[in-house]
Amino acid sequence: MAEAVEKLTKKSEDPSKWYLQLVRMAKLADYGPVRGTFAIRPYGFEIWERVQRDLDDRFKATGHKNAYFPLLIPESYLKKEAEHVEGFDPELAWVTIGGREELEERLAIRPTSESIICDFYKNWIQSYRDLPILINQWCNVLRWEKVTRPFLRTSEFLWQEGHTVHATAEEARAETLQMLNVYQDCFHEAMAIPVLTGVKSPSERFAGAVETFTCEALMGDGRALQAATSHDLGQNFAKAFDITFLDEQQERVHPYQTSWGFSTRTIGGLILVHGDDRGLKLPPRIAPTQAVVVPIWRGNNKGEVRREAEALYSELKDAGLRMEVDLDEEHSPGWKFNEHELRGVPVRVELGPKDIEKGQAVLVRRDTREKEFVDRKELAVRLQALMGEIQENMLRQAAAFRHENTRQAESYDEFKEIIAEKRGFVVAPWDGTAETEQKIKDDTKATIRLLPFERQDGEDLVSGKPGQTAVFARAY
Amino acid sequence: MAEAVEKLTKKSEDPSKWYLQLVRMAKLADYGPVRGTFAIRPYGFEIWERVQRDLDDRFKATGHKNAYFPLLIPESYLKKEAEHVEGFDPELAWVTIGGREELEERLAIRPTSESIICDFYKNWIQSYRDLPILINQWCNVLRWEKVTRPFLRTSEFLWQEGHTVHATAEEARAETLQMLNVYQDCFHEAMAIPVLTGVKSPSERFAGAVETFTCEALMGDGRALQAATSHDLGQNFAKAFDITFLDEQQERVHPYQTSWGFSTRTIGGLILVHGDDRGLKLPPRIAPTQAVVVPIWRGNNKGEVRREAEALYSELKDAGLRMEVDLDEEHSPGWKFNEHELRGVPVRVELGPKDIEKGQAVLVRRDTREKEFVDRKELAVRLQALMGEIQENMLRQAAAFRHENTRQAESYDEFKEIIAEKRGFVVAPWDGTAETEQKIKDDTKATIRLLPFERQDGEDLVSGKPGQTAVFARAY
Repeated sequence: MAEAVEKLTKKSEDPSKWYLQLVRMAKLADYGPVRGTFAIRPYGFEIWERVQRDLDDRFKATGHKNAYFPLLIPESYLKKEAEHVEGFDPELAWVTIGGREELEERLAIRPTSESIICDFYKNWIQSYRDLPILINQWCNVLRWEKVTRPFLRTSEFLWQEGHTVHATAEEARAETLQMLNVYQDCFHEAMAIPVLTGVKSPSERFAGAVETFTCEALMGDGRALQAATSHDLGQNFAKAFDITFLDEQQERVHPYQTSWGFSTRTIGGLILVHGDDRGLKLPPRIAPTQAVVVPIWRGNNKGEVRREAEALYSELKDAGLRMEVDLDEEHSPGWKFNEHELRGVPVRVELGPKDIEKGQAVLVRRDTREKEFVDRKELAVRLQALMGEIQENMLRQAAAFRHENTRQAESYDEFKEIIAEKRGFVVAPWDGTAETEQKIKDDTKATIRLLPFERQDGEDLVSGKPGQTAVFARAY
Repeated sequence: MAEAVEKLTKKSEDPSKWYLQLVRMAKLADYGPVRGTFAIRPYGFEIWERVQRDLDDRFKATGHKNAYFPLLIPESYLKKEAEHVEGFDPELAWVTIGGREELEERLAIRPTSESIICDFYKNWIQSYRDLPILINQWCNVLRWEKVTRPFLRTSEFLWQEGHTVHATAEEARAETLQMLNVYQDCFHEAMAIPVLTGVKSPSERFAGAVETFTCEALMGDGRALQAATSHDLGQNFAKAFDITFLDEQQERVHPYQTSWGFSTRTIGGLILVHGDDRGLKLPPRIAPTQAVVVPIWRGNNKGEVRREAEALYSELKDAGLRMEVDLDEEHSPGWKFNEHELRGVPVRVELGPKDIEKGQAVLVRRDTREKEFVDRKELAVRLQALMGEIQENMLRQAAAFRHENTRQAESYDEFKEIIAEKRGFVVAPWDGTAETEQKIKDDTKATIRLLPFERQDGEDLVSGKPGQTAVFARAY
């Protein structure tokens, strides 16, 4: 038996190396030939599919419909909203030849779809009766990136982008906040990732938005990840693209828009928040495999143990659990334990000849590594319950980690020391100016992740001027 | 009440105009700014989502997993398989600028993904233990088209492309045929579209394939639509991309591959097969709305009828039917009847004051326009059953139409006459040469749609040489 196993770097020793190695070893993604492009491999994609299904159900439950808009955006469309094009122009990929002919106008591969969608909405919206428009799109987008990392920052990525249109500013704002909450619920309930929500500072706002709201998560290495954003676009795009409607008073006015997005980047967040020195740790709600049966046999009882393991697998699968059984004969049980821990399978079900004799099986949790011996007859019910317990515990652990790594800074020196030595979220008052924001960034590489919804006043640590509390961190 | 209604052109009078108008009026799709690009609107997309879900379940049930591969393919990759690049080169869109810099090598937007996927597979496959690879991808692809029509032929379209790798030629062939059957089942069971299956002639083969199998459907205007294809790629791509594996005898050999695709083009087929002068006709299995409650009120009983209609809607929805209730006060019931017929909703549930009094409702089928009065207590059960009956009847009707429009030609004159005057499928022997195939195409615009699996010998109508039966038609 060849047991040559590549050893995973310790997360605590070199989180960056650990991340890249884990993505490869767990077969989550692989590098493409064009810089910054990746293939999402079946195991990684199945996680994304489950997150996608969870979010999509939430979108539909809040009245949204899916649609699909073109990939290619003419340059003139992108240019209509001035801030928007300025924000995205450096990252665009341009199609200049089609069907063997030089194109008259070059076409951008969508970096986001506001500009092309507005062109359709202009025709679809005539009267207040056509509003609201509540549309979402699942698609690929492309932003030419210099430094990339699988899932976290890739040139091409998969995401959903919601684009809604409303008759009033109040309605658009309510929608923006509703979708922020939908994201938060998905992070908490499906991905077991606690996120802070709040408002972005003007410098971090989406190009063309009136206000950007964000979900910020804290990774295991103390850096923040902007996990999803929801934008109140006001009338900016409606004016730039000349979208109008006849209101109930028969007046022609501009509507109010929102957009909100959530991408495959969150899979990177999932790896970084929950993963440990042994590998991935997947929340049961979105784990492709919730439990794996590993038979423990010797030469003389292989037949019986194999049969029993297969029977147990079928039984648990029929009970509605997403199961695997590892009947591989090349590797030892120990090798398999490591492999399935690396893959983050929430529970391992061990079954050996003694267990069969006693009518039991051994459950080993991935999150706590606790073992329990469970009567075979109670196994399905116990496993089902365990899924809920693990899901809950993973969220609790991540929340505790965030709590430990969220610190109040009383002086700028303390601020700098925390960022340099401990990282995590630092809570400190900010005077609201781009100048102090920039100075902090230059000094510490920390940026304002968000302004909490509950306003708290205080004195800016840099300028001493009055301001309100902001949450800072170094970010991915 | 403004009842100005655009009138749908009769399908029999001008099928082409009818098609374009229906796509617009039923809000299925809309034209994009770049030639040949379209937005799929929510109603059209919801049909696609249901087809997609149906197919995806079938793929998973046959052991396939989803993954995602990059959109951009370097030119050198496309050139590796000679026939492949020759087939696709005229239709490519090229990215030449990224991140404000001219690229060293231009990048094609994928027209199909064999070439880039092979590059990944080359690294993923080392030993026979890595086989088979059974991967599918749902994505957008782009082929620069000159003449386009929503769904049927668009530059960008959505599809799935399966890409599998096997140790033996037999296994690859079995997979190719299995997926052809999966497509056929989806067409029959979900879309109520009867398809003929068979082999493509060499001239219609996928660029780079050893053999292409096809599902061909007959549209309402007597033209054929290639609805889905499954390709046995043999070792062509494995050799071109240098994919090898160590077999059980420890010899390094090339594996065998397949690919198979099904696109949004089928939504065009759905419209053309089932639609009639009143509009769309959707099979219940994939209809976004299976039944719509239309209340029939007058001024004096509006409140009561409205309440009852809402109650009925909730009741039927709770019973698991996909329901709508049309409470619009702008339009008359007659207007609504037309509207929901145009949208192809399988059943209309009429509810007026007399029906409420009698404890009944009126069901009107979209497919046969038959009416039935059903006791309110039995309504949910009756509607559920009706869904099955309509689904079955739609397949039967389409199959009967195809049967009537499939003709045996005994002479070339007869062949030409059928194609010119009646269209439909024409069954005739073919000598297997590209010359007669081309002559028939030049003379009649008819092409060989497929060679049936059951070989039938006969004399070629053009050359008089011995051959085997082929199915000809003019195609979309």
